[in-house]
Amino acid sequence: MIELAADTLDTLRQVSTATITAQLIKIAGMRSRSPRGIAPLDRKRARFVGPAVTLRYAPMREDLDGRASTVHPDNPTRQAIETAPPGSVLVIDMGGSIGGGAIGDILAARLIFRGIAGIVADGAMRDVGPLAEMTMPIHCRGSAPPPSSGALLAVGTGEAIGCGGALVEPGDIVCADEDGAVIIPRHLADKVAIDGLEQELIEVFIKARVLAGEPIDGFYPATARTKAEYQAWITAGRPAIVRP
Amino acid sequence: MIELAADTLDTLRQVSTATITAQLIKIAGMRSRSPRGIAPLDRKRARFVGPAVTLRYAPMREDLDGRASTVHPDNPTRQAIETAPPGSVLVIDMGGSIGGGAIGDILAARLIFRGIAGIVADGAMRDVGPLAEMTMPIHCRGSAPPPSSGALLAVGTGEAIGCGGALVEPGDIVCADEDGAVIIPRHLADKVAIDGLEQELIEVFIKARVLAGEPIDGFYPATARTKAEYQAWITAGRPAIVRP
Amino acid sequence: MIELAADTLDTLRQVSTATITAQLIKIAGMRSRSPRGIAPLDRKRARFVGPAVTLRYAPMREDLDGRASTVHPDNPTRQAIETAPPGSVLVIDMGGSIGGGAIGDILAARLIFRGIAGIVADGAMRDVGPLAEMTMPIHCRGSAPPPSSGALLAVGTGEAIGCGGALVEPGDIVCADEDGAVIIPRHLADKVAIDGLEQELIEVFIKARVLAGEPIDGFYPATARTKAEYQAWITAGRPAIVRP
Amino acid sequence: MIELAADTLDTLRQVSTATITAQLIKIAGMRSRSPRGIAPLDRKRARFVGPAVTLRYAPMREDLDGRASTVHPDNPTRQAIETAPPGSVLVIDMGGSIGGGAIGDILAARLIFRGIAGIVADGAMRDVGPLAEMTMPIHCRGSAPPPSSGALLAVGTGEAIGCGGALVEPGDIVCADEDGAVIIPRHLADKVAIDGLEQELIEVFIKARVLAGEPIDGFYPATARTKAEYQAWITAGRPAIVRP
Amino acid sequence: MIELAADTLDTLRQVSTATITAQLIKIAGMRSRSPRGIAPLDRKRARFVGPAVTLRYAPMREDLDGRASTVHPDNPTRQAIETAPPGSVLVIDMGGSIGGGAIGDILAARLIFRGIAGIVADGAMRDVGPLAEMTMPIHCRGSAPPPSSGALLAVGTGEAIGCGGALVEPGDIVCADEDGAVIIPRHLADKVAIDGLEQELIEVFIKARVLAGEPIDGFYPATARTKAEYQAWITAGRPAIVRP
Amino acid sequence: MIELAADTLDTLRQVSTATITAQLIKIAGMRSRSPRGIAPLDRKRARFVGPAVTLRYAPMREDLDGRASTVHPDNPTRQAIETAPPGSVLVIDMGGSIGGGAIGDILAARLIFRGIAGIVADGAMRDVGPLAEMTMPIHCRGSAPPPSSGALLAVGTGEAIGCGGALVEPGDIVCADEDGAVIIPRHLADKVAIDGLEQELIEVFIKARVLAGEPIDGFYPATARTKAEYQAWITAGRPAIVRP
Repeated sequence: MIELAADTLDTLRQVSTATITAQLIKIAGMRSRSPRGIAPLDRKRARFVGPAVTLRYAPMREDLDGRASTVHPDNPTRQAIETAPPGSVLVIDMGGSIGGGAIGDILAARLIFRGIAGIVADGAMRDVGPLAEMTMPIHCRGSAPPPSSGALLAVGTGEAIGCGGALVEPGDIVCADEDGAVIIPRHLADKVAIDGLEQELIEVFIKARVLAGEPIDGFYPATARTKAEYQAWITAGRPAIVRP
Repeated sequence: MIELAADTLDTLRQVSTATITAQLIKIAGMRSRSPRGIAPLDRKRARFVGPAVTLRYAPMREDLDGRASTVHPDNPTRQAIETAPPGSVLVIDMGGSIGGGAIGDILAARLIFRGIAGIVADGAMRDVGPLAEMTMPIHCRGSAPPPSSGALLAVGTGEAIGCGGALVEPGDIVCADEDGAVIIPRHLADKVAIDGLEQELIEVFIKARVLAGEPIDGFYPATARTKAEYQAWITAGRPAIVRP
Repeated sequence: MIELAADTLDTLRQVSTATITAQLIKIAGMRSRSPRGIAPLDRKRARFVGPAVTLRYAPMREDLDGRASTVHPDNPTRQAIETAPPGSVLVIDMGGSIGGGAIGDILAARLIFRGIAGIVADGAMRDVGPLAEMTMPIHCRGSAPPPSSGALLAVGTGEAIGCGGALVEPGDIVCADEDGAVIIPRHLADKVAIDGLEQELIEVFIKARVLAGEPIDGFYPATARTKAEYQAWITAGRPAIVRP
Repeated sequence: MIELAADTLDTLRQVSTATITAQLIKIAGMRSRSPRGIAPLDRKRARFVGPAVTLRYAPMREDLDGRASTVHPDNPTRQAIETAPPGSVLVIDMGGSIGGGAIGDILAARLIFRGIAGIVADGAMRDVGPLAEMTMPIHCRGSAPPPSSGALLAVGTGEAIGCGGALVEPGDIVCADEDGAVIIPRHLADKVAIDGLEQELIEVFIKARVLAGEPIDGFYPATARTKAEYQAWITAGRPAIVRP
Repeated sequence: MIELAADTLDTLRQVSTATITAQLIKIAGMRSRSPRGIAPLDRKRARFVGPAVTLRYAPMREDLDGRASTVHPDNPTRQAIETAPPGSVLVIDMGGSIGGGAIGDILAARLIFRGIAGIVADGAMRDVGPLAEMTMPIHCRGSAPPPSSGALLAVGTGEAIGCGGALVEPGDIVCADEDGAVIIPRHLADKVAIDGLEQELIEVFIKARVLAGEPIDGFYPATARTKAEYQAWITAGRPAIVRP
Repeated sequence: MIELAADTLDTLRQVSTATITAQLIKIAGMRSRSPRGIAPLDRKRARFVGPAVTLRYAPMREDLDGRASTVHPDNPTRQAIETAPPGSVLVIDMGGSIGGGAIGDILAARLIFRGIAGIVADGAMRDVGPLAEMTMPIHCRGSAPPPSSGALLAVGTGEAIGCGGALVEPGDIVCADEDGAVIIPRHLADKVAIDGLEQELIEVFIKARVLAGEPIDGFYPATARTKAEYQAWITAGRPAIVRP
């Protein structure tokens, strides 16, 4: 797996998903990297950055409740939960189904204990009442009472998967915030982090000026004048980005 | 209508919809009992338990505004509202349409006065600003300004209906919480209550332990060891379940 | 463009979208005037009234990132933002696409500076974290990180458009609240305002009585008795409508 | 049930569904009378006219295969099949579900024997291979192998139902052809037949002329000149409408 | 992989998918075994029976056209095509996407040469003009001009997959006809074949009688009388089932 | 408008939409150029090539039947029909609505008389019975009896529009065949024609060989060996492409 620069993940924590998706279009013409139809369960606890661990569900067959149980050591959900490195993000391909919730409060408790950064799933969660009291940010398609085995069967982990129309490969860098999530191909993460932070800074500068009445004409999107004024502003002391 | 055990409804109030849907799969192989695509209007006021009173809408015809009005004594919406027993739950088949809101704040005021426990509808509500100030929990597909007569005509009450892909018969027991709703066939309600409470208790125990670092391996889903330790914990004094 | 009565917009600010949609059915048989599938980003900041300025997007072509940029003076998004009169509402036809967010925090800052009352879009917004800290109410289909150019290209402003299944013409009066939005054809706005306020007042009266236990039988929908009692109540001192 | 004029059904057999839907807008402002998303299984065997007999399905519950069987005398599917008058049309509310086929070849054989004119269903059929060899026209949402009990349970007949977004009441007149189906409210059938045939005749005349090169300017939609020339053409001998 | 009885595949060729889905409900309570939303490209060339070879697509990433090419020996599409045993059925998980056609006429030519029995895909095909001239039956979601790489990337073969909401495991028996397809779990194939053929025979008998005017009352679904008369009919010489 | 090479349209008539979409990805990274969810009304009459004339519909408002009529000289449908050059293709943005058919048999008769090559619409047609007897190929989303004014209002012609998710600008080259349609940006048409024909020829050669048993290994997609053998085959006499 490609090695990332030491500060890439930390840098990405200062960059919004809005900026990252813009960079992926600019750098690589990639328009498909944000899972669609997925939102944070709680907009106030929406942010994380980390490498993807993938988990894939297929439709359930009615006689496989046994295989669906995480009691079996080779159950893919269990494998993903128990082997995902601390700081990683669990990305789940549920094929868009909302027929059952993939993760409930007990598995979430285990994920939190193991240091998982967050979850992105193109399906539902369950126990979202208790989950709202817990610390892990989750992006998904809402809630459903039934267990995942009501409609889905875990069939693989560590694979390339789809999630909300985006290809996700293990190790891709997943960033999430209030807007949703974005999957950065691992080989682009260093560049997206550097260019993204630069864009983020300049937009902080622009927004402050626009709020103060600066017209966007000749100023936003950034022109030569914008960049010059931005450089002066930076030189005067680069502000720390504290995402609100 | 089948008589329920005296404490079944009270017991079910201590059991989450997540647990109930799991019990319905385990006891009866039923995977279709939770209406899909429906969520509480307000996750902080999402819970109720009660027997279903059903109401069915069909698409509107443009010349039937008169028949759509609840002014007529035989209007099904009016009949359902005025005859539903205190403690019952109004379950509305809107065919998934979000073209109009079934219940606004005045009808909700009447339902509250009559002691209705809550609403489950596979369509929209209206006046959700005022409804947010009122006490009745509502699970539905969001809000829409138009009256139901903008798109729908009430055509029946007291019938078997569909709601979000689940069959609902009058008298079925409807449970709802933050995750959504579940429809327990009336003849299964006593057993689901008893087995569900048992599952709820053991999961409270398991979650506490997992949060404290207990690995799920050999512990969750519950093994013989889990059950033995749970029994010891229960013997040491059964905790009251106070759903947070 | 048809001149409105001087107090029409102010009157409409006292009328809910629920009431307005009911009036449009009653006055003109119009059932299609509320965009479907659109909700306020924040139910606590959902209300506005103003004339529509329209903006239309078509699907993006992969080589048109240049044309998509608001840097060009004839970019329709820029034109709409810079020429919309203070107090107007930006209504955006995104064809239902959630592949990119039409407006982010910098353009929102500019719209706020220019005095725009609000946005209605049948697509996504971006930067919704920062937008939540800003003052402009927005009704849309949720959030998406990518820029609109990820999936969409602005192609026109000042045109008749569709938005969530409703025809919107420049100058139509857009009203929005917690339930969603409604588009009043400009030539009906004066009448809808007057009749809508009357309906709003009578419903305030009815709701107060129903909450106090008045049965709806012979009282709601309003009968001759209701109207007589309402007149007495009004005569006793017309209450100011302060929408909660 | 309202009595129809003696020749209304025969007249309607000469009028296309396109013309009938146009008449329903013109006469009664009704835009919702054609079930959406429904097509003939075979465009070459698509036409029928007759009064509606309604049948309603709700979602299946997994323990009700017994009740789903047509072996029971009070099974609604069986009741509808055995009591529908010759010449009537079976209209089925399947809630849009394609999880199972409502009618297979044996029930179709019985319907044919009993003289049913056709079927309109907002769901799937099964045995469409054999059905293609049989004489009954069917409009539906395609085919699905499973029996209706795979996903649906018949719960009522003789009710007001929805079908593809159109209200259908028993006795409404159902017309179907290559374009799809339309449901004429029974009280409008006589007028729609008379006006529809007139429109059909004038459009036969117009189409012949347009094919021969007559510009539509001042001619179509019909102007005074068109009508005068049409009258002359009629006077010269009214053509029989033989729908191709 | 479980060994099948020698004549199971041949027996299944005499049984319709309608009958097989009914048997799967009866034998095993399985209601999820027929992919939804999939139809034969050509109803006149719709039938096949064979064991499943699975192929899985995920969403495309814009820089992976190279990996998408079947020129690479480890491309999953190429692997599936080149290693599928004669008589097997290619079942493709496209996640429901119609953004590109999985198989065009050249790959189809290769599949035909290699003796593949047919294709079931929950996505589109391309080159359907030429494909209509070729011999292989295909069940899918219609046609789309773009190559699969327009929207999809092959990521695996020989896995458990989903197809139209049905779990498909390699070796499952796939049956297809005019109605659509059904996936028989391999361990049930022998029993489904035997019971299915019995049901097929009795329904041939029933249908002949119903067409001749026999009422369904007490006759269909099969009663003791039906079975006795059927046995007499069989004894008089079992008819060959020649599916029309 | 950019001038095309003299033989570009004729060359494109020899190239399939499958090949054209592949060329657009290869030449320009364009994956969005084929309208989705659209199919020929009749696969046997599906082909045409020509420059786009655009027509745009918005949702209908219930009081605008007058404006919807093509009797008005400035009605956009009428304008498009009467001013489209012979050989052009009418591309209609209906926003995906199937609530009414855009073109019926009389307007089709006029379009045929005026020499229009075909229609592509992301909505429904009506009078498809008579249309099946006429000569114009139509790609759309099926049929619906109501007039377009049942759900839609023509609001513009000669604009950039969307159709099935593809941007269409007036003058873009529209190609259609059995698979569907593709919109070539006008400035790429000459190159797509030349490269597309080359690809078409080599694929004719490859397919003939694969049908004869040539393995795809090292042969397809085309390798150096393939190209050499192809050149020899061409040198031996280039075959005329007669698309079947």
